[in-house]
Amino acid sequence: QAGPVINFGENNESFLQIGYALQVWAENRSYTSATNDASLNDTYLRRNRLTFSGQYSDLIGYYAQIEAASDSRGGDDDREVYFRDAYLTFDFRDEARLIVGRFKNTFSRENLEACLEPLTLDRSDLSYTPFGGTRDTGVALWGNLADAKFQYRIAVMDGREGDELPQDAPRVTARVHWSTLDPESDYGYRGTYLGTRKVFTIGAAYDYQAKAAYADYEALQDPKDYKAWTVDAFAEYPFGSGTYTLAGAYFNYSLGDAINQAPDPALPANTELEGFYVKAGYLLPGKVGPGRLQFFARHNGAEYQLAGGALDRRVNAAGFNYYFNGQQLKLTLEHQRADYANPSATNPALQDNHQTILGLQFIL
Amino acid sequence: QAGPVINFGENNESFLQIGYALQVWAENRSYTSATNDASLNDTYLRRNRLTFSGQYSDLIGYYAQIEAASDSRGGDDDREVYFRDAYLTFDFRDEARLIVGRFKNTFSRENLEACLEPLTLDRSDLSYTPFGGTRDTGVALWGNLADAKFQYRIAVMDGREGDELPQDAPRVTARVHWSTLDPESDYGYRGTYLGTRKVFTIGAAYDYQAKAAYADYEALQDPKDYKAWTVDAFAEYPFGSGTYTLAGAYFNYSLGDAINQAPDPALPANTELEGFYVKAGYLLPGKVGPGRLQFFARHNGAEYQLAGGALDRRVNAAGFNYYFNGQQLKLTLEHQRADYANPSATNPALQDNHQTILGLQFIL
Amino acid sequence: QAGPVINFGENNESFLQIGYALQVWAENRSYTSATNDASLNDTYLRRNRLTFSGQYSDLIGYYAQIEAASDSRGGDDDREVYFRDAYLTFDFRDEARLIVGRFKNTFSRENLEACLEPLTLDRSDLSYTPFGGTRDTGVALWGNLADAKFQYRIAVMDGREGDELPQDAPRVTARVHWSTLDPESDYGYRGTYLGTRKVFTIGAAYDYQAKAAYADYEALQDPKDYKAWTVDAFAEYPFGSGTYTLAGAYFNYSLGDAINQAPDPALPANTELEGFYVKAGYLLPGKVGPGRLQFFARHNGAEYQLAGGALDRRVNAAGFNYYFNGQQLKLTLEHQRADYANPSATNPALQDNHQTILGLQFIL
Repeated sequence: QAGPVINFGENNESFLQIGYALQVWAENRSYTSATNDASLNDTYLRRNRLTFSGQYSDLIGYYAQIEAASDSRGGDDDREVYFRDAYLTFDFRDEARLIVGRFKNTFSRENLEACLEPLTLDRSDLSYTPFGGTRDTGVALWGNLADAKFQYRIAVMDGREGDELPQDAPRVTARVHWSTLDPESDYGYRGTYLGTRKVFTIGAAYDYQAKAAYADYEALQDPKDYKAWTVDAFAEYPFGSGTYTLAGAYFNYSLGDAINQAPDPALPANTELEGFYVKAGYLLPGKVGPGRLQFFARHNGAEYQLAGGALDRRVNAAGFNYYFNGQQLKLTLEHQRADYANPSATNPALQDNHQTILGLQFIL
Repeated sequence: QAGPVINFGENNESFLQIGYALQVWAENRSYTSATNDASLNDTYLRRNRLTFSGQYSDLIGYYAQIEAASDSRGGDDDREVYFRDAYLTFDFRDEARLIVGRFKNTFSRENLEACLEPLTLDRSDLSYTPFGGTRDTGVALWGNLADAKFQYRIAVMDGREGDELPQDAPRVTARVHWSTLDPESDYGYRGTYLGTRKVFTIGAAYDYQAKAAYADYEALQDPKDYKAWTVDAFAEYPFGSGTYTLAGAYFNYSLGDAINQAPDPALPANTELEGFYVKAGYLLPGKVGPGRLQFFARHNGAEYQLAGGALDRRVNAAGFNYYFNGQQLKLTLEHQRADYANPSATNPALQDNHQTILGLQFIL
Repeated sequence: QAGPVINFGENNESFLQIGYALQVWAENRSYTSATNDASLNDTYLRRNRLTFSGQYSDLIGYYAQIEAASDSRGGDDDREVYFRDAYLTFDFRDEARLIVGRFKNTFSRENLEACLEPLTLDRSDLSYTPFGGTRDTGVALWGNLADAKFQYRIAVMDGREGDELPQDAPRVTARVHWSTLDPESDYGYRGTYLGTRKVFTIGAAYDYQAKAAYADYEALQDPKDYKAWTVDAFAEYPFGSGTYTLAGAYFNYSLGDAINQAPDPALPANTELEGFYVKAGYLLPGKVGPGRLQFFARHNGAEYQLAGGALDRRVNAAGFNYYFNGQQLKLTLEHQRADYANPSATNPALQDNHQTILGLQFIL
């Protein structure tokens, strides 16, 4: 972020930075909805965020971000604003940092890649955990070891909550990564460093919540634990011929197969899901016109453990980013095709489909 | 707006301005609701807006405004905040400017008159288009020609969206105006310039969206196009005896008379509407007490093409603005009477009624 | 508040202060909901507020505060943001000040004690009036007399609103207090002054709205008036052995016993309620570690005039505040037990229960 910084406090030791970020997407899609198979043209505000963040002191930081996600998508205008993030940071030392509040859950690398600095247009659905999809509420302890070659994170957060639960136990997430070249020492990753770093990082994470659902909800019997794990790798290297990016991840979510028994109706299908993505990028070495040009492609696969396999699909996408001024002003064009293993006979949203999105990103 | 400006960036070429605007209205009305004919006293926040706007560079501007409209009206307290506006501007040259995002649709002059700089208490309902009432999402190209005597605007926006549509086609709006005296060269107009300009502007606009509704929704048959047009005129001239304002507009909205056939239930009645307003103002030449005094009156007529004509009405309003400090601190008193051509026998909201509103406006 | 201040305007006579405040609470409770008696662990954002306030001139001030209350509580994530406060102040002289807009209703002392400067973890439910619970919309005239020994407030606000009302009459609230030692001259009080003042204040208030409900809603008969009164006392005194705080209040709400007849279904049970609280604090004289330590306890009693007395309860709570840096960074631990006079046989939320909350507060 590059918004204005206001210094204040005794000896000017505090500061506040105000940021604004907007992603306007113009989408053409081959279907309208689960009940309407006409093609669709839609312009919406994919991300639209005001950020108030800074340090209160060297030790204590704060971050408050409000947004209205996907405002105006599908005619859903004037969507309500909420706090996407609201947390405090306590940086005791590089080996021991604390985050308290509502912030990104620390499971998958791709969820932790900055929303405004992805490689492709956006991340895959796989990166969102079934409970506390992108953000969750709680506390995380994390730090860098061995000159930031090694990073660990342990989070205790809300996870699944609600009346349907056998017991409201905390969700525990652990994640480690190892960077052999330049370190990735922040809590957030990036989808591309635009050739400014040489990175090879491999990571793994585990996610757990005890008794997150009844397999037999009617009888309030047979509580099941939620368990998930992921491994991921990310490589980006600048050569004379351009900067090459290659990344991939595997995901395994499970909740004792409750989804195929008689769980509460709110239990989401992605509690029983196996999937992966690979993505690649190529940034041309010099300027192309006033800015820089980066081509990208991605492939995702998702296999739900549902009878009939209605949701199982492969997604292929390709496109380019044109950086007028780094991530601060960027134009992205992506074409995406979804191929369903068992296409629905009646629901256009679960049939093979395609979409093309032109995205304009601005970061103050 | 007059809120604080923070300069930043390389060579201080960027700035952020923070604004706040509040309109507190105290209303007395002759009925409570469609089912309660008791009179009503209500104080509410008609507009309540925080604005973060500025220029990133000479070329690129941004505007983000959050608000909770009519908060506390009728006991609907703590209404959700949303982004009223969120857009980027690209000012290539005065003849060619681009707006991208969510912003005022460019159909009627009165909708484009600044919410905080009207002549009368507020604009008429007629100024809101059936789809994308005041704001819409998309892109507009506009510019000033011939020393800003002439202005054009072309917008491609979302218009009507949703499952009910035969086809989600974009909405296209075109508007021109011609100013014979001082130019009105901004994207937004004002309802009064308080004697600081000599203005005579006439404008016209056309609004179109293909296949915006089925006339026979049950059978998914007979798609109809939305078409609307308007003409408007605005004159304001400062004389020795005071500043006189006179404005008027005619509106014609149509959607193939679908509303009188068998359309989807969400189709609004104002898709088939003819109407007009005239409004006039007189600003006294000098100060009256610490501020300035302006009298105003308006007359609106609306004829819906509905069987029975239940919504057809005339509205007369008169009152005054007292400007303690221009638009930054203003007190407005308006009395309004609505006369229904075919008053409802049972619904007090569709019978002749009157309301008196005392409004206090503050702009930081 | 201690956020950054931006001066602007002619002669720098205006300023804007930006504030941020966050309370993260981690709660363990002996029940989950009215239908689930399992214990609960929940982390949520009790208060989460961005504030934009300041003076436009010596005379005119403004205050806009957005928040999402109890975000993430019970799994209710990404709660909508709304304007908690939005008002203008006109400070003609210390004896006559005006507040216009949406702000704290002026009935009970405890509701008027700053949300971020309580003595105990939070205020009691008793402090919230049945209509316009903590904030209401309207206008208040208030001022300090006799060297601020005496303060008066008169407010005319919305009170109860809606279709159910016999007549939408304004709510009128009057409050006075008398301070024998140091004055409490602001519109808001504090739950503790942390030993910086010597205070003994007694106050009383009366709240009234005509015809706020029908006792026989079906027949639209027998309109009843809302009447409430309260008295309160607050004492805090720094001695060599530490600072001692003692406070108490009595509340009496009534609406003609409509709740026990046949009122509209929206009428809340606390329209017929008698209750009280006492609370006490002890702040150790010096530092304990890097900060200061304050012990507190409170006792509330509530008697609803309902048949069966299902809601009647006593609440005992005790805990401590640890002030790392005054109210700007504070850790609070409170254990609370609720004892029901007539515990429900089936509803865990209306049976004896207990909760322990660890709260972290940050104020920018």
